[in-house]
Amino acid sequence: MKTFDEALKHLIDQANPHAKSETLAVASALGKILAEDIISSINVPAHDNSMMDGYAIHTDFLTNNISFEVSQRIPAGSNGTPLQANTLARIFTGAPIPNGVNAVIMQEETEQQGERVKITAHSVKPGQNIRVIGEDIAKDSIILHKGHKLRAQDLGLISSIGVAEVLVYQPLTIATFTSGNELLEPGEVLEEGKIYNANRYVLAGAIPSLGFTLIDLGTVADTLDATMQAMQQAAKIADVVITTGGVSVGEEDHIKPAIEQLGELNMWKVKMKPGKPLAYGNIQGTPFIGLPGNPVSAFATFILFARPFLLSMQGQTQVEPQPIWLPADFDWQKANFRREFARGKLCNQNKTTSVALYPNQGSGVLSSTVWAEGLVVIPEDTTIQKGDLVAYYPFNDLTH
Amino acid sequence: MKTFDEALKHLIDQANPHAKSETLAVASALGKILAEDIISSINVPAHDNSMMDGYAIHTDFLTNNISFEVSQRIPAGSNGTPLQANTLARIFTGAPIPNGVNAVIMQEETEQQGERVKITAHSVKPGQNIRVIGEDIAKDSIILHKGHKLRAQDLGLISSIGVAEVLVYQPLTIATFTSGNELLEPGEVLEEGKIYNANRYVLAGAIPSLGFTLIDLGTVADTLDATMQAMQQAAKIADVVITTGGVSVGEEDHIKPAIEQLGELNMWKVKMKPGKPLAYGNIQGTPFIGLPGNPVSAFATFILFARPFLLSMQGQTQVEPQPIWLPADFDWQKANFRREFARGKLCNQNKTTSVALYPNQGSGVLSSTVWAEGLVVIPEDTTIQKGDLVAYYPFNDLTH
Repeated sequence: MKTFDEALKHLIDQANPHAKSETLAVASALGKILAEDIISSINVPAHDNSMMDGYAIHTDFLTNNISFEVSQRIPAGSNGTPLQANTLARIFTGAPIPNGVNAVIMQEETEQQGERVKITAHSVKPGQNIRVIGEDIAKDSIILHKGHKLRAQDLGLISSIGVAEVLVYQPLTIATFTSGNELLEPGEVLEEGKIYNANRYVLAGAIPSLGFTLIDLGTVADTLDATMQAMQQAAKIADVVITTGGVSVGEEDHIKPAIEQLGELNMWKVKMKPGKPLAYGNIQGTPFIGLPGNPVSAFATFILFARPFLLSMQGQTQVEPQPIWLPADFDWQKANFRREFARGKLCNQNKTTSVALYPNQGSGVLSSTVWAEGLVVIPEDTTIQKGDLVAYYPFNDLTH
Repeated sequence: MKTFDEALKHLIDQANPHAKSETLAVASALGKILAEDIISSINVPAHDNSMMDGYAIHTDFLTNNISFEVSQRIPAGSNGTPLQANTLARIFTGAPIPNGVNAVIMQEETEQQGERVKITAHSVKPGQNIRVIGEDIAKDSIILHKGHKLRAQDLGLISSIGVAEVLVYQPLTIATFTSGNELLEPGEVLEEGKIYNANRYVLAGAIPSLGFTLIDLGTVADTLDATMQAMQQAAKIADVVITTGGVSVGEEDHIKPAIEQLGELNMWKVKMKPGKPLAYGNIQGTPFIGLPGNPVSAFATFILFARPFLLSMQGQTQVEPQPIWLPADFDWQKANFRREFARGKLCNQNKTTSVALYPNQGSGVLSSTVWAEGLVVIPEDTTIQKGDLVAYYPFNDLTH
């Protein structure tokens, strides 16, 4: 048996970044992984500028006067001229600071007096309300690194240095199929002894959610021939093949013999719950991950194992989620030699946050993953007392 | 001036759910908002079934024997017959439990002895390894409520009750434009006194990220005519219009007079930082939100105000994010009468999580939002000591 950490490390070590790169307009690059460092060729801001609508001044002028003539007007997007002594410049947010100015006084701290403007501010400090050149981004600095996943604010930052296009990795293509004679598709009439396919639809959500292109090959009959055909087709058209079901020790499973004929297979019993068994290998060179057939286990192993593997192959650098350590709102009496990933959610009371568990942690209970908003780690051979710190992984971090 | 909470409440109160509904295949419904309750017409599991590959037995048989004949074989997807006394049934994961059986013994706890099978398990308890009918989902229960946003696991749960299509809300269409003579588009040559447009690209990421359809009308010249034309066009084609810039008190701003001619406008100074000013109104009946021109303020007000407003209009019920209360890894000496939303991220050390701040919290520093992974609330008139609990909102929760 492998520990969770051994299995994860082994899997990530095998993930060879594999994606081709392409150039995209920044506005189309949301969720993509950078295939280059983004280096700024400019300072942002490019010049000292006003943070406010107001009046530009040199603080020295205030020694003798509080009422001034307005000698120029500098809207955003236009340049002023050096400020005449003992005058003000009307200035707007974002407008460049002209020579001879060392502070901006906000409009609300002034008063119009005929042609003149009176300063009503209690104090005016040098540098006040002025954004300094390069304060946000220094010329020649790397603003985002290769392997970073682009969020909305990243698109804004890239645009702010004038870069219109970025080199990103093309999404990998993931082929999936589910197997099991007991599976019916939603919409079909329920027959005695059968169950509806849930895993196919979990993957149909989870794979595109991570930014990959999904090829859903549907359900494959529980025969060796059908399984081998599906495998070969999937390996040809996709960068990675993922299946659910058919990898347990039972005689009815054909995934194992099919892959053993077509490539290489490692069957792992991972010391985790829910989760085992997990299969990893390749089909004629194309990486293969076989998730368990149980829907809770399939979901858990997808987000905990397949996700970091796929993101590594996609070229993303940060693939392992960070836990949030929070007090448990539960007792966990029964230590297990396997690491448990319980379904939980945050619970706020009196400005404190703790982690609550779904009452039924049975691995057949898919509704626990719907009630939950994350996974709570119960370490190997450990009991938990209410108030102990536990590691919590929000689903939002595991599905994006 | 409005407090943050007043402004948010006012905005959400004005959000009339507005979206049309449509029927989609479950596999295409990721990220959509349910326009109906999903009620299960079946029990899941539909019958007692085996959690394991192994042997089905009645525990009474073990009183006198530990070695048994195998009288039948029940693969997943097929039904057995009532179990003959003092025999076993070979049974596979998911297969229905036949009459006369009250436990399943996992394969690993048995031993083949010629034609017979010997039980090597230390103890066998009634109910062991049997999933009970309705354990996951009870017939006639609501498994997901109208207004819920569909995640991968939700698609799985809906499929598991045999539902193939769901009624969801069609994405609202959001039109945006940015204004300001000082704005250049990325790719253009930088001119003295100008800056590159960042807000346009933040919105080009943030709006689709929330599931809306974006119509980007680009940058509008800083004239009243151009602004009014853009307003009218946007109001005609979209469900909501969002702009950035042009709503401060300065004379160069045309958003205010344009909307006052075309509809209704409220200018809010919200007691928050970054953030003010915020404008809310309508253009010939179409809701309008005017975000500040400063990119950090635009991003913050979008995720804090526009997001819950838009999601409410879209029909989502849960629109306000839940904070995570965590110890501060910083001191905050300077109390502010405005609520501050500082850019921060989680910091893990020795199995505890605290919240760290970006060193430069200047509202002109967009790189703070890129370094950060969430917002940290500094309440009004408050100082923070290292170790005090602060409310943290992960960007992942604010951008999905």
